[in-house]
Amino acid sequence: MEARTTNAGFLIFSNPTHMEPLTLHILGCGSARPTHKHNPSSQVLDCRGKLFMIDCGEGTQVAFTRNRLNMNRLGHIFISHNHGDHVFGLPGLVCTMSLMGRTADLHIHAPADVKPLLEMVEQHYCECLGYKLVYHPVDTAANTLVHEDRSLEVWSLPLRHRVPCCGYLFREKPLLPHIRRDMIDAFHIPFSQINNIKNGSGWTTPDGTFLPHEKLTTPADPPRSFAYCSDTLYMPALAPLLKDVTLLYHEATYTSEMEQRAKQNAHSTAAQAARIALAAQASRLCIGHYSACIDDENALLQEARAIFPRTILAREGMQIHL
Amino acid sequence: MEARTTNAGFLIFSNPTHMEPLTLHILGCGSARPTHKHNPSSQVLDCRGKLFMIDCGEGTQVAFTRNRLNMNRLGHIFISHNHGDHVFGLPGLVCTMSLMGRTADLHIHAPADVKPLLEMVEQHYCECLGYKLVYHPVDTAANTLVHEDRSLEVWSLPLRHRVPCCGYLFREKPLLPHIRRDMIDAFHIPFSQINNIKNGSGWTTPDGTFLPHEKLTTPADPPRSFAYCSDTLYMPALAPLLKDVTLLYHEATYTSEMEQRAKQNAHSTAAQAARIALAAQASRLCIGHYSACIDDENALLQEARAIFPRTILAREGMQIHL
Repeated sequence: MEARTTNAGFLIFSNPTHMEPLTLHILGCGSARPTHKHNPSSQVLDCRGKLFMIDCGEGTQVAFTRNRLNMNRLGHIFISHNHGDHVFGLPGLVCTMSLMGRTADLHIHAPADVKPLLEMVEQHYCECLGYKLVYHPVDTAANTLVHEDRSLEVWSLPLRHRVPCCGYLFREKPLLPHIRRDMIDAFHIPFSQINNIKNGSGWTTPDGTFLPHEKLTTPADPPRSFAYCSDTLYMPALAPLLKDVTLLYHEATYTSEMEQRAKQNAHSTAAQAARIALAAQASRLCIGHYSACIDDENALLQEARAIFPRTILAREGMQIHL
Repeated sequence: MEARTTNAGFLIFSNPTHMEPLTLHILGCGSARPTHKHNPSSQVLDCRGKLFMIDCGEGTQVAFTRNRLNMNRLGHIFISHNHGDHVFGLPGLVCTMSLMGRTADLHIHAPADVKPLLEMVEQHYCECLGYKLVYHPVDTAANTLVHEDRSLEVWSLPLRHRVPCCGYLFREKPLLPHIRRDMIDAFHIPFSQINNIKNGSGWTTPDGTFLPHEKLTTPADPPRSFAYCSDTLYMPALAPLLKDVTLLYHEATYTSEMEQRAKQNAHSTAAQAARIALAAQASRLCIGHYSACIDDENALLQEARAIFPRTILAREGMQIHL
């Protein structure tokens, strides 16, 4: 994973050894009180073209399209907790998708107390919802598998906030090794055998020479992972669940000077976020969920970097390639 | 009422003969499908410092503060109908006001089907709402007085849409005449008498000369009015209810070429909005609620101006001084 800056001035981490980037889009990184600098919480993880949304504050549908993301590719939304700045964008997004002619199911994974909001939207605002809204309750107290598909697992991460709340860990399943193109060409191995070889087979040439799997491939890329931890009190017990995570997004609502206030409001400081990243041996840390009373967010960055140097500040429109 | 343009490039109508301007702030003038050009519907009428909001689409709270409006001055919200692009900003606005320490009652005037949304917000998102949310049902089928205070009346205007829907007419009560400063000075009339004279009394000088009320005053400004008509089918029957309105905001979702579609979706064309303004003998017309499929809104403007020349296009951030 390396850093580069786009034309728009956003810092991007990219890993050029991976053929298919996992990209995190930051749609909103503010906190409860709205400001003109930040949208409320929302992120989208683009995993080989499949989009996974995490949290959906007011205005998310506009931020989503502003980031040139395609609603048809959004299949799952994961909600951390039932506070307005994390869910008030859901009604608009759900209705707009229907208006745009969506027919594919939309899966919403959320704590039980989010359900009444979804029921109200279905009952009062989408007389003829053109698609199925599938609600999946999430046990915020447990570290359990919430969703999986062919290439990805999503785990809940118990957090401690003023209402039931959990984070989410997205983890790639082990990847297949890379085929060595030079060997394929040299031994005229037919295309039909590529998948078998990727999955562990060797190849016997027409003259009877056996080429073992290891000679025909280079090792698979290590699976990547992304963890979203917001909103939460400082929870050292989180670190083992985040072990070796490629990118950790951890809320850093306040500076250490405001640690008491952070505790009262069940939030974390930048230093606390950095301590979690350090203990988890994360590759990178991205902090956000800034309190509206923080004028200069660089104070948060400096505080976190003093503990965990590989930290960046979340910004609306930022893309992070894992 | 005259037109001028601000530094920000917005066209402003002002009436310099009125000491206390009534100002309409356009917060959003888009329609159901979100675009990057427009916010969903919301307007604020500033009546001598008291703010009256009409409709509250998603993102209204941010547009409100971006327009430098003060939440403490907002006492009443009037909702036209229960479609998401007119109400999905309510939950966030209601919660933010509580977060900011509001204690004054907030009055919400809305059709009956908006009530479940308000109840859900109170029940699930504002455990300790610091102020009272007072719901006033509005009969959308009747032209009735919905609210009044010392200086203003608000009347419902029955509209025809796909759900119960009404517009609102804001009408100043008759104003007091202006005191003639030259007469006050010439006859040394004490300050304590000013209100009596404004309210119709004359004044007897120490030498016994009676000065009648008419000699001490100049006539009152004519009362001003503003009507909000969105969303609605073309309704010629509206015009008598809008007679001589100072400013009419009328939806113009489509051009005349799309009249069939307007009818199907229970919306109006720009020409139909202009016909209402003409029949009502309105002073000015402002059109909005643009369909996302209209690329060039000037087509709407031209169409309306061909029928009613004193038409302007609504724009986010626009202020119209009546």
